Amino acid sequence: MKVYLDCVPCLLRQALEAARFVTNDEKVQKKILKKALIGLDGVNWDTSPLEIAHVIHRIVRKESGVDDPYRAIKRKYNDIALKMYSNLKSMVDQSPTPLLTALRLAIAGNIIDYGAGSNFDLDRTILDVLEKEFKIYDLSEFMLTLKTANNLTYLADNAGEIVFDKILIETILGEYDLDKILFVIKDEPIINDATEEDAIYVGIDEIQGIEFLKVGVGVLGNGMSYSSKEFWKILAQSDMIIGKGQGNYESLSDRGKIFFLLMAKCPVIAKDLGVSIGDTILKLSEGLK
Amino acid sequence: MKVYLDCVPCLLRQALEAARFVTNDEKVQKKILKKALIGLDGVNWDTSPLEIAHVIHRIVRKESGVDDPYRAIKRKYNDIALKMYSNLKSMVDQSPTPLLTALRLAIAGNIIDYGAGSNFDLDRTILDVLEKEFKIYDLSEFMLTLKTANNLTYLADNAGEIVFDKILIETILGEYDLDKILFVIKDEPIINDATEEDAIYVGIDEIQGIEFLKVGVGVLGNGMSYSSKEFWKILAQSDMIIGKGQGNYESLSDRGKIFFLLMAKCPVIAKDLGVSIGDTILKLSEGLK
Repeated sequence: MKVYLDCVPCLLRQALEAARFVTNDEKVQKKILKKALIGLDGVNWDTSPLEIAHVIHRIVRKESGVDDPYRAIKRKYNDIALKMYSNLKSMVDQSPTPLLTALRLAIAGNIIDYGAGSNFDLDRTILDVLEKEFKIYDLSEFMLTLKTANNLTYLADNAGEIVFDKILIETILGEYDLDKILFVIKDEPIINDATEEDAIYVGIDEIQGIEFLKVGVGVLGNGMSYSSKEFWKILAQSDMIIGKGQGNYESLSDRGKIFFLLMAKCPVIAKDLGVSIGDTILKLSEGLK
Repeated sequence: MKVYLDCVPCLLRQALEAARFVTNDEKVQKKILKKALIGLDGVNWDTSPLEIAHVIHRIVRKESGVDDPYRAIKRKYNDIALKMYSNLKSMVDQSPTPLLTALRLAIAGNIIDYGAGSNFDLDRTILDVLEKEFKIYDLSEFMLTLKTANNLTYLADNAGEIVFDKILIETILGEYDLDKILFVIKDEPIINDATEEDAIYVGIDEIQGIEFLKVGVGVLGNGMSYSSKEFWKILAQSDMIIGKGQGNYESLSDRGKIFFLLMAKCPVIAKDLGVSIGDTILKLSEGLK
């Protein structure tokens, strides 16, 4: 997805929020905000919003000297979600359509997104999402692809949310035979996106056949990047790909064969998808359709 | 009122909104947004939000070549409010407390504020404000000051809203003897703030004893400025001062003897006043209390 101009003030607001996470000193907050202004002016706006977000959050980390501003938030939501785990598992087990319930819960978990805003109610969202109609609902393609797949690439989004992803993956493995699952996480901290630390903390590594792939965003990353041919090759070799959340949609919506699973949380994403804020989406990217 | 850091992303959003008023060309919008980023970095953040807003909107006007981006919007709301005029006058006339009803209507008209955002419902706001309790309510000081005043300085805010101000001033003149009313408007276009063109269009000049004073905001203005000693001297010589809307509060909340009449419409102003968004305010500035 391209960068909409609306993303620019929003990313500046994000920089300020992040600055307030790392310090109460208004002078430092102001310095970070000024650097973010300059950063936003200097960056190439013809990339994806997520790439610009990485530049902005690198500025926050550098100026504050805090390597992971959202670490405490991520831990908090990992813990909250882990406490919910057995209840959520029961919901899925007792459902007449376990996979569908697990899909809905995975979307509900996507509300834990500090990029879109810090005002959300996880419990209420779970209840809402379990009841409401999907706005985009490519379920038959999803089931059909899953049926013949030997491997699954799962592009994770946020800490806390990955507990909900774990339940979805476990539910898929209970119903379908898959040799390998590649769980894609971020190779450096950005907002509250899940890193390897989070994935291990919530026990994603205990799932049989799972492997982690750490991927960076933007040209400044050291290892494999979301926009690298190397990564696209991995995607091309995957039988089935699930992309969680707005960030993955922003970065990869023009790649085919990805099932985007998310809640629309910002006006720009909602507009791009042709839906309203709060709508739930299971969308096969156009590439394959 | 000082600039809160939250104002910076908000002013950038305002620049984008203004850019979209003047052109559909995304290249021009982008250019304006980039210039606004640089402008926000370069400006002194130790002034008032309104002064920075002036710098930003000057950039929009200069880059777009449009001398008054909100001219059509201002005309639209002048016309809407003029159509309401006789109904609103009847409401006041039939009220057991005409002055209080006129005060409430003047606050309702303050919703026509494109600085705070373009999503508002004027009709609903009028009904709401007529019913709801004031959150800050210095009415007895207001009446007491009015009783002994020979002149009134009225710091206007937005186009359209000034029709509601006209009704308030007419109601005051119906109950109190005043020799002179100084109606203060902006000397250059900024957002949808009322200028002389608007004041004459809605017939403010027909009020007996009224004089216009055109004042600029910020150091770049050519004539008298909000932050000039010349202007403060006029305020000091006024028996009674009414300051409409957020912009006047932002600029002059540290000056005494001003009755601020507004609806809180942004989180920063609400926080500064210790109220919630949507609350209605009649506040005598601390200077005199």
